[in-house]
Amino acid sequence: MTELRKKKVVVVGGGTGTFMVLSALREYPLELTAIVSMADDGGSTGILRDQYGVLPPGDVRRALVALSDAPALRELFNYRFEKGDLKGHSFGNIFLSTLEKISGNFASAVSEASRILNIKGEVLPVTFQDVRLYAELDDGKILKGETNIDISRTKFRAKIKKVWLSPAAKINSEAKEAITRANLIVVGPGDLYTSLIPNLLVRGVPEAIKKSKANKVFVCNLMTKFGETHGFTGKDFVEEIEKYLGKNILDFVVFNNKKPVDAILAKYKKEKAEFVEPQIIENGILTDLLAPGPFIRHDHKKLAKVLTRLLWGARNRGRKNPGN
Amino acid sequence: MTELRKKKVVVVGGGTGTFMVLSALREYPLELTAIVSMADDGGSTGILRDQYGVLPPGDVRRALVALSDAPALRELFNYRFEKGDLKGHSFGNIFLSTLEKISGNFASAVSEASRILNIKGEVLPVTFQDVRLYAELDDGKILKGETNIDISRTKFRAKIKKVWLSPAAKINSEAKEAITRANLIVVGPGDLYTSLIPNLLVRGVPEAIKKSKANKVFVCNLMTKFGETHGFTGKDFVEEIEKYLGKNILDFVVFNNKKPVDAILAKYKKEKAEFVEPQIIENGILTDLLAPGPFIRHDHKKLAKVLTRLLWGARNRGRKNPGN
Repeated sequence: MTELRKKKVVVVGGGTGTFMVLSALREYPLELTAIVSMADDGGSTGILRDQYGVLPPGDVRRALVALSDAPALRELFNYRFEKGDLKGHSFGNIFLSTLEKISGNFASAVSEASRILNIKGEVLPVTFQDVRLYAELDDGKILKGETNIDISRTKFRAKIKKVWLSPAAKINSEAKEAITRANLIVVGPGDLYTSLIPNLLVRGVPEAIKKSKANKVFVCNLMTKFGETHGFTGKDFVEEIEKYLGKNILDFVVFNNKKPVDAILAKYKKEKAEFVEPQIIENGILTDLLAPGPFIRHDHKKLAKVLTRLLWGARNRGRKNPGN
Repeated sequence: MTELRKKKVVVVGGGTGTFMVLSALREYPLELTAIVSMADDGGSTGILRDQYGVLPPGDVRRALVALSDAPALRELFNYRFEKGDLKGHSFGNIFLSTLEKISGNFASAVSEASRILNIKGEVLPVTFQDVRLYAELDDGKILKGETNIDISRTKFRAKIKKVWLSPAAKINSEAKEAITRANLIVVGPGDLYTSLIPNLLVRGVPEAIKKSKANKVFVCNLMTKFGETHGFTGKDFVEEIEKYLGKNILDFVVFNNKKPVDAILAKYKKEKAEFVEPQIIENGILTDLLAPGPFIRHDHKKLAKVLTRLLWGARNRGRKNPGN
């Protein structure tokens, strides 16, 4: 008898983009692993880090919820208190931080939460080291902390020149293994400097991705973000990723080529967010990924179709043809 | 084939006394149900009630933990934050209150928590109504709230004349059913006016206990508590219980007759807590229930042995002999 092995997909990121990709792919018979950034220090996560000396729970929580098969607990984990002592905290963050306090160990907190939430797949922090994200701007200014880098959505600020983690961090060995064994690695979409690249800043991550025989895909954002990627074309996104990942590593880049109507784009003007023009590049896949509705979002189902096709054939559009 | 039905034991109370009885009995092949007071309004529980308008989670949490088969989660549920935004809160309280906020329903919060904690048995709030405990003292003073009644451990205060709930509350129908079906009902040990009697103040509880064919047992406290039961003999405890439960309902009263050594009793003097002298009464069982060690506690195993004997024979010591 032949056992049909599930294909292994690793999604690298953090935040709502990764939540979306995981939610999309969980409908398929895949072995899913989320590798998430540990650079978050804002909101509830930031307060818990400061007050309790824990590792950042926020991105892990979002990925856990995306993969959970327990509807009541999904809601519980995402519940955010609006008043009182717990104001601003999300329950899942408190849950993960308390488990970490008890066990003294974020890894066992994540695996206990995974068990309770009955998750389909695995969520792996990219590192277990307590790191902070730094950015140097084009004007020489240094910003400390993911929140401070992420926050400038509307005020003018010089472009981000480079980002790094301090202290330098090493890859979680389970994350390394998942990358090595993967059939497909999906980076993005998500905030470029504050959700995606923080994973690539961890020592061993670019190396592991490079070595892996998986197809490597970058899913480009639909919109730019002021203070991070203002004025970026699709190509600019790819070049920034490649600056940290290395050149000629991405097998595919998926761009949305369906521009939202002006009335919808106009709503994003107050945040100075603009449509990302797709680019015809060697390994680019241009396709309609836009969800219907009043907000500019990726369509789960459309994206999942594109991504799964990169696993099971249709590999003739990319730069290389790893299936043959 | 004959199916051997497990005997059904209902433990009525709240607080650490009930935790102890449940912990003791869970080692036996019994069908255990904890019926817990909903009058708590102190500490973390009180803050959550005030800030989020939830029902009191504290006593439910303790009973859940006592019956849980998941060691890591037991610890999680009892974890109390010592600093920061969550200072003073126990994780389990936050957990129950958040589930209640989401579902709008304390019953489903308790059953979801029961599932996650993998509890052996069932925990039932005595009522789902939002009640507060009141006490009238011998000097005519009225105290509002369990905390205010419970708090006077060292300062002189007139004796408690009577206690009541406001608004009047009705028994949870599942609790009623459990009482009706029980083979043994255990009341106590625990704080007389603030953990035990608040259950008997709920409409339908004394009636259900009276009607039940179960053996009904009161386990007397080892020590008095200043501000509640100062100067009480064993008989005083029983008389107060009977004031709210009704006379001639208790089949057995279990007293500890092993007095701790003076050196240990001396430690309790600053709390003005005194040894409860056991009483030879018609339905009384006098036995050594004292745990070894520097604190005055019931010995789990000794108590469990006495209680289980009241189920499976040795029923000749009580006022009635329900086995025949």
